[in-house]
Amino acid sequence: MSFMPPTDSMFLLAENRDHPMHVGGLQLFVPPEGAGPEFTEDLLESFRRAGNVSPLFRKRPGQPIGTRWKNDETIDFDHHVRHSAVPGPGRIRELLQLTSRWHGALLDRHRPLWEVHVVEGLKDGRVAVYTKVHHSMVDGVSALRLLQRSLSEDPDDRDCLPPWALPSRRTPAPRKSFDPLALVGAGAGAVGEMAGLVPASLKIAHQVIRDHDITLPRAPKTVLNGPIGGARRFAAQSWEIERIQRVAKSSATTMNDVVLAMVSGALRQYLLEQHALPDEPMTAMVPVSLSLRAGDDVAPGNSTGLIVVNLATDREAGATRLEEISYSSRQAKKIVSDLSPTQFLAISALQMLPLAMTPIPGFVRYTNPPFNVIVSNVPGPREEMYFNGAKLDGMYPVSIVTDGQALNITLASRDKYLDFGLIGCRKSVPHLQRLLGHLESSLAELEQAWG
Amino acid sequence: MSFMPPTDSMFLLAENRDHPMHVGGLQLFVPPEGAGPEFTEDLLESFRRAGNVSPLFRKRPGQPIGTRWKNDETIDFDHHVRHSAVPGPGRIRELLQLTSRWHGALLDRHRPLWEVHVVEGLKDGRVAVYTKVHHSMVDGVSALRLLQRSLSEDPDDRDCLPPWALPSRRTPAPRKSFDPLALVGAGAGAVGEMAGLVPASLKIAHQVIRDHDITLPRAPKTVLNGPIGGARRFAAQSWEIERIQRVAKSSATTMNDVVLAMVSGALRQYLLEQHALPDEPMTAMVPVSLSLRAGDDVAPGNSTGLIVVNLATDREAGATRLEEISYSSRQAKKIVSDLSPTQFLAISALQMLPLAMTPIPGFVRYTNPPFNVIVSNVPGPREEMYFNGAKLDGMYPVSIVTDGQALNITLASRDKYLDFGLIGCRKSVPHLQRLLGHLESSLAELEQAWG
Repeated sequence: MSFMPPTDSMFLLAENRDHPMHVGGLQLFVPPEGAGPEFTEDLLESFRRAGNVSPLFRKRPGQPIGTRWKNDETIDFDHHVRHSAVPGPGRIRELLQLTSRWHGALLDRHRPLWEVHVVEGLKDGRVAVYTKVHHSMVDGVSALRLLQRSLSEDPDDRDCLPPWALPSRRTPAPRKSFDPLALVGAGAGAVGEMAGLVPASLKIAHQVIRDHDITLPRAPKTVLNGPIGGARRFAAQSWEIERIQRVAKSSATTMNDVVLAMVSGALRQYLLEQHALPDEPMTAMVPVSLSLRAGDDVAPGNSTGLIVVNLATDREAGATRLEEISYSSRQAKKIVSDLSPTQFLAISALQMLPLAMTPIPGFVRYTNPPFNVIVSNVPGPREEMYFNGAKLDGMYPVSIVTDGQALNITLASRDKYLDFGLIGCRKSVPHLQRLLGHLESSLAELEQAWG
Repeated sequence: MSFMPPTDSMFLLAENRDHPMHVGGLQLFVPPEGAGPEFTEDLLESFRRAGNVSPLFRKRPGQPIGTRWKNDETIDFDHHVRHSAVPGPGRIRELLQLTSRWHGALLDRHRPLWEVHVVEGLKDGRVAVYTKVHHSMVDGVSALRLLQRSLSEDPDDRDCLPPWALPSRRTPAPRKSFDPLALVGAGAGAVGEMAGLVPASLKIAHQVIRDHDITLPRAPKTVLNGPIGGARRFAAQSWEIERIQRVAKSSATTMNDVVLAMVSGALRQYLLEQHALPDEPMTAMVPVSLSLRAGDDVAPGNSTGLIVVNLATDREAGATRLEEISYSSRQAKKIVSDLSPTQFLAISALQMLPLAMTPIPGFVRYTNPPFNVIVSNVPGPREEMYFNGAKLDGMYPVSIVTDGQALNITLASRDKYLDFGLIGCRKSVPHLQRLLGHLESSLAELEQAWG
């Protein structure tokens, strides 16, 4: 039993049936050469047999909720590790439907807060693994890092362990980064560190805005920024990094800019079809990493802050959108480069602040959103990776949506690919899967302009 | 939009992540002769195409929760009608695991409160349909009746409609029966009819107890009567009515007595294995139907009341247990036959009253339960039934468990079978499926004694 810090408990306290607070990952694996039909069963067995469950995956919230963690001695593997199957015709489409359902269901708080589905029945022979972990246990980036750490670069390695069985020293360090979702929890009534942080940050942030003559971008109201329900839609697809790199090179922009331009074009097309495109340009909140300067006022290490980028969704031509996005993003980074990490974190907090207000009933109906969509890029493995000989063929992040932010796009790099995971509220983001087609046609348009 | 009566709203207000308040049914179908692999897809299509959704299945709770029903004009069939698959090796065991997971997940309150899974992948070629309906919409008995009404006795009938598309006149009448779960909701803070009923009933009940010199059976504390979590275990199996009837006949008892003796033997064996059998005999709460006498003080029709029967789990021999159960059940019915329906309902309410207290934190830890287990017997079709040519081969009720009542056994008669559905809290009722084997060996023991 141990004290639960507010950075953990706020995600438990903020959670309800419409706002599950877990993050997930959907992995695809190609079974090794010559693997028979017993491959899934063997994988399940290796998951269930993994004896030494690390302390992180034994933690269960004690009563009253939010006050302490308890440690479970015995782990009910039949509860945590589940065997599932994709119904006919066994396409990725059906797998995404299942993932949407799983991601919309709350975790059982009487057990450690994680769940894994090993999924058979894809007609292409691949096997999927959907992993779900509560945000009070671990944040999204650390969760993906755990998934990665269970993999090996060596296709002949047969000593791979699932994330929950990794030796303790390999489990993630306490959160150092600025978590975009942290304030959502803070607003829901958690006390302590976070609550203390906000007023101090506000003071620093306002000072910075005055000193640097900064104008924070304004976001229009859109259908993506209303209250949400509990059901989800998930869509996922991989793009070759080379295609995105080529556009970035010939347009003298960055890969991140090109990704944002893909998102911009896709959202524009999607909202046009629904007669819901706002006149003003939409904006995206983008976490960026922050290399700390020597002699600085926070502890050394890598940290993350947030910038808001103009998506230029009011412009028809893809090339124009990419130019404006790149300009906006350079401006934001230029400001950031002049700030100390503490000032940067303060500005980030200021921009997230309206999200912290969303648990107040009706709040999101009457205010402009701080930004329209979160687009997050998480670095993944640079090589082909394997789990006991099965080749990783996709690793799609499944993030969290909240009132006011009904769509979240998180992508992870993997080998030669960018794996996009799009999660949305089922009700506010109908036909979410159409965004995949629009992302592709956006990229194709950019390739034509800059190829 | 319409006012929501407290008999509906209390089930919404009492619901939380540990206490989902929906009832379900798991049906098995044998596809018609010569049906190809497209059978499941066709069934799904016929479910989704069913145009005229009845008002009952369009109802959605409006805000604030518990005050009013709203009517949805458009129905999102992709949300309500779901395609699922049993993973390998495709046994009933895997189907039951899936059903347990589905039954432990909350319904989305932003949509009408129902969900249907059409399940393929059973290796024996049968197709399963799991249906889930919120108790605020319809009670368990009416839900099973709706499932029945969508079936036909004619194997050549191809005009069968799913429950939600049945003409309005065939939807169930408002609740007339005494609902064993009603007081659970009432205790959770609902006001109005139910709250008014309780004090009046108490007065009548105490009068009856004095006048008739009744001793209400006392139940020991058992592991089945503690607080519960949100995850579930479901087990199901069919028994031939003829076997049960034969024992009832030669032992001069009733079918209901034999069923209770099966349950008694199974619970005894199950708790012995866990070193958790109480010294005192356990009791079961059994809903019984009540034929209203002419000139009586409540509206005519069929009504249901509750009796508590001694299960004699302290006796080793099956034959002895059956004798004691039969005696206890006759005593209870004898008392009942002397009562007016109002008096009977009042006594039933009195016995349920402790359940109404269970939402008070810690209550179930410190008091004896009013009874140890609910055993409910629901009449079903007497003939073979079909849905568009597919033969019904099982219809297992999936009921609700609550704090203090971690196991519920509900059975439905069907053609020549009794279909048992056992639902339990995953944590308090480990190895629930073992009860199936114990039910069978209990019956076998009775057959040996009375066969």
